[in-house]
Amino acid sequence: MKALVYHGPGEKSWESKEDPRIERPTDAVVRIDTTTICGTDLHILKGDVPEVAEGRTLGHEAVGTVVDAGPGVENFEEGDRVLVSCISACGRCAYCRRGMYGQCLQGGGWILGHLVDGTQAEFARIPFADNSLYEVPEGLSDEQVVFISDILPTGYEVGVLNGKVEPGDTVAIVGAGPIGLASMLTARLYGPSRIIAIDLADSRLEQARRFGADTTINNSAQDAVEMVMELTGGLGADVVMEAVGVPATFELCTGLVRPGGHVANIGVHGAPATLHLERLWARDVTITTGLVDTYSTPTLLRLVAEGRLDPTPFATHRFALGEILDAYETFADAARTQALKVVLSAE
Amino acid sequence: MKALVYHGPGEKSWESKEDPRIERPTDAVVRIDTTTICGTDLHILKGDVPEVAEGRTLGHEAVGTVVDAGPGVENFEEGDRVLVSCISACGRCAYCRRGMYGQCLQGGGWILGHLVDGTQAEFARIPFADNSLYEVPEGLSDEQVVFISDILPTGYEVGVLNGKVEPGDTVAIVGAGPIGLASMLTARLYGPSRIIAIDLADSRLEQARRFGADTTINNSAQDAVEMVMELTGGLGADVVMEAVGVPATFELCTGLVRPGGHVANIGVHGAPATLHLERLWARDVTITTGLVDTYSTPTLLRLVAEGRLDPTPFATHRFALGEILDAYETFADAARTQALKVVLSAE
Amino acid sequence: MKALVYHGPGEKSWESKEDPRIERPTDAVVRIDTTTICGTDLHILKGDVPEVAEGRTLGHEAVGTVVDAGPGVENFEEGDRVLVSCISACGRCAYCRRGMYGQCLQGGGWILGHLVDGTQAEFARIPFADNSLYEVPEGLSDEQVVFISDILPTGYEVGVLNGKVEPGDTVAIVGAGPIGLASMLTARLYGPSRIIAIDLADSRLEQARRFGADTTINNSAQDAVEMVMELTGGLGADVVMEAVGVPATFELCTGLVRPGGHVANIGVHGAPATLHLERLWARDVTITTGLVDTYSTPTLLRLVAEGRLDPTPFATHRFALGEILDAYETFADAARTQALKVVLSAE
Amino acid sequence: MKALVYHGPGEKSWESKEDPRIERPTDAVVRIDTTTICGTDLHILKGDVPEVAEGRTLGHEAVGTVVDAGPGVENFEEGDRVLVSCISACGRCAYCRRGMYGQCLQGGGWILGHLVDGTQAEFARIPFADNSLYEVPEGLSDEQVVFISDILPTGYEVGVLNGKVEPGDTVAIVGAGPIGLASMLTARLYGPSRIIAIDLADSRLEQARRFGADTTINNSAQDAVEMVMELTGGLGADVVMEAVGVPATFELCTGLVRPGGHVANIGVHGAPATLHLERLWARDVTITTGLVDTYSTPTLLRLVAEGRLDPTPFATHRFALGEILDAYETFADAARTQALKVVLSAE
Repeated sequence: MKALVYHGPGEKSWESKEDPRIERPTDAVVRIDTTTICGTDLHILKGDVPEVAEGRTLGHEAVGTVVDAGPGVENFEEGDRVLVSCISACGRCAYCRRGMYGQCLQGGGWILGHLVDGTQAEFARIPFADNSLYEVPEGLSDEQVVFISDILPTGYEVGVLNGKVEPGDTVAIVGAGPIGLASMLTARLYGPSRIIAIDLADSRLEQARRFGADTTINNSAQDAVEMVMELTGGLGADVVMEAVGVPATFELCTGLVRPGGHVANIGVHGAPATLHLERLWARDVTITTGLVDTYSTPTLLRLVAEGRLDPTPFATHRFALGEILDAYETFADAARTQALKVVLSAE
Repeated sequence: MKALVYHGPGEKSWESKEDPRIERPTDAVVRIDTTTICGTDLHILKGDVPEVAEGRTLGHEAVGTVVDAGPGVENFEEGDRVLVSCISACGRCAYCRRGMYGQCLQGGGWILGHLVDGTQAEFARIPFADNSLYEVPEGLSDEQVVFISDILPTGYEVGVLNGKVEPGDTVAIVGAGPIGLASMLTARLYGPSRIIAIDLADSRLEQARRFGADTTINNSAQDAVEMVMELTGGLGADVVMEAVGVPATFELCTGLVRPGGHVANIGVHGAPATLHLERLWARDVTITTGLVDTYSTPTLLRLVAEGRLDPTPFATHRFALGEILDAYETFADAARTQALKVVLSAE
Repeated sequence: MKALVYHGPGEKSWESKEDPRIERPTDAVVRIDTTTICGTDLHILKGDVPEVAEGRTLGHEAVGTVVDAGPGVENFEEGDRVLVSCISACGRCAYCRRGMYGQCLQGGGWILGHLVDGTQAEFARIPFADNSLYEVPEGLSDEQVVFISDILPTGYEVGVLNGKVEPGDTVAIVGAGPIGLASMLTARLYGPSRIIAIDLADSRLEQARRFGADTTINNSAQDAVEMVMELTGGLGADVVMEAVGVPATFELCTGLVRPGGHVANIGVHGAPATLHLERLWARDVTITTGLVDTYSTPTLLRLVAEGRLDPTPFATHRFALGEILDAYETFADAARTQALKVVLSAE
Repeated sequence: MKALVYHGPGEKSWESKEDPRIERPTDAVVRIDTTTICGTDLHILKGDVPEVAEGRTLGHEAVGTVVDAGPGVENFEEGDRVLVSCISACGRCAYCRRGMYGQCLQGGGWILGHLVDGTQAEFARIPFADNSLYEVPEGLSDEQVVFISDILPTGYEVGVLNGKVEPGDTVAIVGAGPIGLASMLTARLYGPSRIIAIDLADSRLEQARRFGADTTINNSAQDAVEMVMELTGGLGADVVMEAVGVPATFELCTGLVRPGGHVANIGVHGAPATLHLERLWARDVTITTGLVDTYSTPTLLRLVAEGRLDPTPFATHRFALGEILDAYETFADAARTQALKVVLSAE
């Protein structure tokens, strides 16, 4: 088969590789029908994720079709159309038993395209298939489903649910890239009275309006703290989400939140931030961090199936799977291409 | 002033009465600009609420204007436009301190038009004004606000919040009268995937669709249990609300709920129901009852102000305050008039 | 091997039977070192649980040693000392993924000694071993652990956690049999200010004091409602647990609870009860039912291992496994023998 | 009367001052029977709390007797024995209505001995008396109650409840001064399996054992992270509390917590800390800050009244009120005197 293989920082190729096959009884092999590229894949290619070995097939998002299932797989069989979750779950460790699959202690968590070969390939082996694949509801297209592999549950679990959005809330989201947009889209499920998107680029703020933002602030030109205070009677936002991953935006978030409010960090950080405890200690603030667990995947699939949630606007560019190197270029150059997510389809 | 006065079962009149005045330092007197009639008022008139004394002015819903405020009132002054809550709160007893104003131990709770004179009058004295009145957000009309006196927080708190509706849920609501409709309208705030309305009258089910129901079941003709099971893969609904108040509908609710689901009783009951513990004991069901506390009033006002919630479709008929006897007739004969709520406005 | 086999209502024998063996890859076979008898076993023998087939080995509680493990079992191997949970969990259905193992949709739940052969035998096959067995912490005796198979998690999850006991609460528990006592013992973990035990037998109330009750009420002689009201300033108990399983005790519970309080039903009911909605509708009461899920098993094991919880007083009588027919007699005649739990040990 | 008056950084005196009297209808005047000194008072004297004006009477903890009550006070009258809470609550603002009295928007919050004259005096005026005083349960001594003014609810709400301690948890508390000890004492209410106290002074760690610590770590000599990891199977503590208030201890806390665990900051901080998001972003950690709200005061009083909680060991030194300057010296020199709390009694 063909696969997108990592060969060390800056090096990748679309090359032939041996077909994956069942290695353990709970594995399934899935033919990849649709996959996509994640910001994390770009980080790997920069060398920021050193535990990714050379020779690794990248990718942790896909819709596909089961072509083989180990003898320990109960829920899936050849021919089943499935969503591949970015998080694999052993289903029996202390964390998996609490639904915290991202913290799996027995070989799960984020492994695809990271510690084992991933989904940017014609086929992929999926460990712990019963707890890591999801049946695609009838009638849904691949594009309706594929973003539930990662960005939708990430925005929803790590942003909306950790942030405890409630009806009537004012929600401020710092960062209007794909994850920030996924947070806006899913925050709407909890009936906030106002979603404020904050970003440095007007083009992203325009996108934000399409994904549910009521108010946008370009904080290269405007004072976000002042504007949020004005909109909230001087108190601050009920929930603030960090969807960038740098110290400055995290620190901005802690300045935007009202006493008693929540700051949900979603961004992937490479450096420490300053926590202004001298100002925050008495303000009853809750700060959360989190890796997606994908416990919400069945809920999100149901919401899409019932027409309550439409993730298809994330699909801004489409490619054949064999054109994946072009797709990477388009995605990496989002500032110019306005790419949110690129969709790669098997021919 | 003029007031609608209860004179014992079946007897009421629109008559002259002494103007209310400040009796305790925390009282305010409010000129009634808009009021409405509640199903509970009809119960009182039938003699079902024996603690209502003859001579009592009825009514516990209103938008008005403060005309006098006692020396202990801090938040309101003459001229303020206010929502009168159906629940008064002393603000200092053990229940009020937990936000359970409906259970107030020191003279609050549901008292207006019940234990003290109410709002179907030209003026009303409001005890504990600071904790029982709410400022009307600028720009909102009386009709946008008046249903937040009672039915909106009742449907929201006792139905939606007690029932713990979550995104993706299937919600079944038995009874499509005003309270059931208020539950449907506010359940939408939590992103359910499907709301099922169940009633005996097609006309009410038509209304249900306008207030947010996706599916309607006329259980005079259809088997509601069978249909809900079919819609939910044989498991039952995640949340079921009882919005009628008779044993049969409560028992239906316990048959509609999935293992692990919630039954939220909203209906006012006059007789015991049968609880099928022989079937329910092992099904992890949660059943709640509740009187509205109106702790959600600020949230609901904000949602209306931000355009997230539109309660105006409840206003089906309009009268001048002096035509209140006609309004009662229209409201009492809802089966014929299709009345949901009648709006009474001061001239 | 030898096993206690059910032969229809009233009929059981300790007889030879073929040794269990691995049937599916996720099975383990456990040598039973210690087992016990549950009130449910007596119900089965009365014919109250018709889905138990003739020829079924009874029993769903045990501590044992793994003698064989299927190829799909990852967490256990031959020689491991394990607690057998009364609830088996497939680990991958919608309910297991939420920790609601008792409602497992794919062949788990309460199956041992019910739908498959159980633990009152020299050996038992345990389906879904990874999610249904628990490692026994080093240094703990069988008697410290065996009651965590069923009665401890039942009292804790269905009584204490469903009832939401909080520090300072007044907790009333109706029924001082083994399950009621397990609820008292584990309610102590949440720092209640007072536990009130209510029962018809003074001997059981004496036991209740040993298991944590501060106050006892014999409601054959005393008016429990009046006494609880007196102890709670006329409001009622914060949490009330039903640990008997008949309509009268359930109805008593709903009369003991304060406005805003919780009634947690633990009892196994064979008949419907009356729910006095005409009195309860406005009292903000939460009523829960539940089958144990055993999600708390790791917590309970840790608490015993750390010396925070001592379940050994449940062991009132001890027998060799071969004396199980005598043990049944002792347990069934608890009113005379004062048996709480009988411990059966392999020779 | 006599009062302890602040005269700018480093300056205080016990001097004559006019008796306080009712200023607003909701005020009460309380004769101080017992008061104590808080670490915050030392901060004020250092000049760290610049909003404290010269001439201010210090102190925010007391048990006393009502000698006068304004016309708007409903719950208290002359002669009532009361606990003075360190937090005053208007009872009607958005925060008070949610039980967040520490964030009161209308003149409450921490005001005593801060923005208005406090309790280190013979008499004190208490604003918002109905929501800021608590009846002392019959039979309790002043020493059983006075620490519920501040340190007990602080440790309990900001440490134990914000930290979400649950039965079976491993709880690590950094700092074994009075607040840390109050957290240990009240953490016991939630049945943790192990409490680990971490401090630099052996004398304080000895105290920690008396207040509920099972394990102590002197992190001047031992590696706290390594030891906690060893005690928790390499995962970290379920709940970690910061009870010191300097950057280093906060940063230690974030190194001690397990994935999915809670860090509850209780310490008063004067400088920012470093938040290692590059390590924490994927670990599902929740960090909370908080000022005490004293919503738990009724619960704590009940627990003391029922004998479940004994705060008297905090009283290490006793003085007459007129000896308050000596008491300050003893308290300020805790390293030498081993003082936890000094009790000052009116003669």
